[in-house]
Amino acid sequence: MRDTEKGEPLDRRRFLRAAGLAGAGLAASAKIANAQQQPDPLITEVQDWNRYLGDGVQARPYGSPSPFEKHIVRRDVEWLTVSRESSVNFTPIHELDGIITPSGLAFERHHGGIAEIDPAKHRLMINGLVDKPLVFTMEDLKRMPGRINRAYFLECAANSGMEWRGAQLNGCQFTHGMIHNVWYTGIPLKTLLDEAGVKTNGKWVMPEGADSSGMTRSIPIEKAMKDCLVAFGMNGEALRPEQGYPVRLVVPGWEGNMWVKWLRRLEIGDQPWHAREETSKYTDLLADGRSRRFTWIMDAKSIVTNPSPQAPLKRKGANVLTGIAWSGRGAIQRVDISLDGGRNWTTARLDGPSMPLSMARFYFDFDWNGRELMIQSRAMDDTGYVQPTKQELRQVRGVNSIYHNNGIQTWLVRGDGEVENVEIS
Amino acid sequence: MRDTEKGEPLDRRRFLRAAGLAGAGLAASAKIANAQQQPDPLITEVQDWNRYLGDGVQARPYGSPSPFEKHIVRRDVEWLTVSRESSVNFTPIHELDGIITPSGLAFERHHGGIAEIDPAKHRLMINGLVDKPLVFTMEDLKRMPGRINRAYFLECAANSGMEWRGAQLNGCQFTHGMIHNVWYTGIPLKTLLDEAGVKTNGKWVMPEGADSSGMTRSIPIEKAMKDCLVAFGMNGEALRPEQGYPVRLVVPGWEGNMWVKWLRRLEIGDQPWHAREETSKYTDLLADGRSRRFTWIMDAKSIVTNPSPQAPLKRKGANVLTGIAWSGRGAIQRVDISLDGGRNWTTARLDGPSMPLSMARFYFDFDWNGRELMIQSRAMDDTGYVQPTKQELRQVRGVNSIYHNNGIQTWLVRGDGEVENVEIS
Repeated sequence: MRDTEKGEPLDRRRFLRAAGLAGAGLAASAKIANAQQQPDPLITEVQDWNRYLGDGVQARPYGSPSPFEKHIVRRDVEWLTVSRESSVNFTPIHELDGIITPSGLAFERHHGGIAEIDPAKHRLMINGLVDKPLVFTMEDLKRMPGRINRAYFLECAANSGMEWRGAQLNGCQFTHGMIHNVWYTGIPLKTLLDEAGVKTNGKWVMPEGADSSGMTRSIPIEKAMKDCLVAFGMNGEALRPEQGYPVRLVVPGWEGNMWVKWLRRLEIGDQPWHAREETSKYTDLLADGRSRRFTWIMDAKSIVTNPSPQAPLKRKGANVLTGIAWSGRGAIQRVDISLDGGRNWTTARLDGPSMPLSMARFYFDFDWNGRELMIQSRAMDDTGYVQPTKQELRQVRGVNSIYHNNGIQTWLVRGDGEVENVEIS
Repeated sequence: MRDTEKGEPLDRRRFLRAAGLAGAGLAASAKIANAQQQPDPLITEVQDWNRYLGDGVQARPYGSPSPFEKHIVRRDVEWLTVSRESSVNFTPIHELDGIITPSGLAFERHHGGIAEIDPAKHRLMINGLVDKPLVFTMEDLKRMPGRINRAYFLECAANSGMEWRGAQLNGCQFTHGMIHNVWYTGIPLKTLLDEAGVKTNGKWVMPEGADSSGMTRSIPIEKAMKDCLVAFGMNGEALRPEQGYPVRLVVPGWEGNMWVKWLRRLEIGDQPWHAREETSKYTDLLADGRSRRFTWIMDAKSIVTNPSPQAPLKRKGANVLTGIAWSGRGAIQRVDISLDGGRNWTTARLDGPSMPLSMARFYFDFDWNGRELMIQSRAMDDTGYVQPTKQELRQVRGVNSIYHNNGIQTWLVRGDGEVENVEIS
């Protein structure tokens, strides 16, 4: 692609020129302060942080971000459900980089608020169609053989749900922020189930949460045995309370609601339970009045996080476009970018490991000449699946659902650099 | 290896038996509450966290660990230097898992306290033997092409330094906790240097910090061009203040003192500066009175973090031995474990990616029969380098130094499960 109208792929020589000008505009090192530029007192004068001793290590036994970053937080939307009975907030994906979501900024979705559990008093029971019902303490889990670490994305099935009927929320934090990607430490669920001995007619697993919602879902035994984890660690330390401390289920690639937090029980049965959260909720009502049953896998999806409505373009010239992509079917293999609403595409650069069922990071360095852009990204996974447009999804599923919208997002970049959520009609 | 005296590699059938007994001892699911066991009220009674609504999402815009984890913090040692002029604390590596260190727990070493810098007022200057001195704002750096993400370990040259003269500090947090391993987001230093144009006689780079210590070191241009980063991101978000916010130098595999924090200047010269921190400090004084010059690379090293003096064995039967390994020369290829003070060795399981110049995680599942153990780990990197014993190091370097001790550590596990830092004589 080479779209000379609405932004161009970065030309190396042009970038160098742009950066040179930027340097001159900013002035000025000691070496060049005698030239035409004004000396920059931020360089020529000793600053306070250079003049005075700072705090020693005893100030912060557990560290936190700089006060200058305090605007970077999980945010909720007033008109969405934010009661304690049903609350949700969103990861500030436009302020993050790389592939791992900081634990303090990983979005939350609670159905009964945050359970505060003393790990010494927590128990995990396995019962139902097993040879030997078992109860594990947290100490038991940490003594189990075969502990592993894996990075997986968790996406709420309702992520981008408000966009089914058209562009609504003006910021990727709100349209796409019900996702995080963290390292889990835990025991394969298979190890625990093998310990209990699943009977031959045991075909389904029902995880149950210890919070006040008592969350339950039905998981086929094949998935449970394949790659699910009983996780007690997250990004190197213990799970956070809002992510299920002391232990949660990890169901790689599948919708977040199944990753039961504060996990207290695993029941084995011979058929699914058809719990509330897999019938009246988390199913897609089609145009003809029927619903899709068991829509577990989160299909390939991507979003440009910068620029975006919360992160406008500030200057012409060199700019970095970046975003994230993920697939519940495998690893992200490629992300394409359009700057003209999907007419022309060019392949972005993936950087950082692109692991199966984990988030990938893409970059596209470009020069902006001040023209309007219609930015889109399109993810492809290693099964060959290509992220569809919203129109393609609507043709198949109608617009009744608030779940499983993995359509291509469009950002309109205006001449002043401001960005807006729009749809291509 | 099969040491029947001092611990055994896990036998799968024996583990199953042990876990079954543990389950029975704990009792008791609803299904088996009618058997001989006592019902466990933590299962049969409704707990508070199941009875009452928890906090909603608005409670924690930026999350933090559970109150039950509040003992897991960076710690200092009273008799080591902890003035604001020179302070250090240690990562609680015995409480962590996986390969990534949480940002809030990454050890700190300051020479002038923590600089608190407004990023809008920060400047990075490149001067000296360059065609075009340049000044970058943080915005400039974030607009540069070629942004990348890499996980690298940072180890202080003085890590394990107190152990040169014998076992002293009783806990791996204190003997080996001057290390962290995080994801960095930034721009290759080469990109910035190419922008300025290094003159043909420019052979060395001097990074300078904006803190009150004005830290300076000398880095050969080959290393600067090879893999150094100018990093503004850490574990997905902005650098933390104590790690150099808003920007630090990353010098992969080399001693931590060179990774200048609060980076404000890069001077290019034709010879090293022989700054304080590479002459009177951070050099190894040998037995004959001479010093090793420029000991930059951190050689392969490993430590068993569990069990360790701060994390004793609590029960006989199944236990998980785990630890970390790293090398400044490449990726960790293998870690061997001894339970009998280095007489017999068996290979541990590496889990999680083992990336070049990044920390690796190893596990060794074993049964403990209550006998004394002398636990050691021995790392090998992909150059073939093997971690030496402390005695081997002392034979070459004497015992004057407090730097670059990568010798094999020994933990004595007593019959009651308590663990002590010892040396094999």
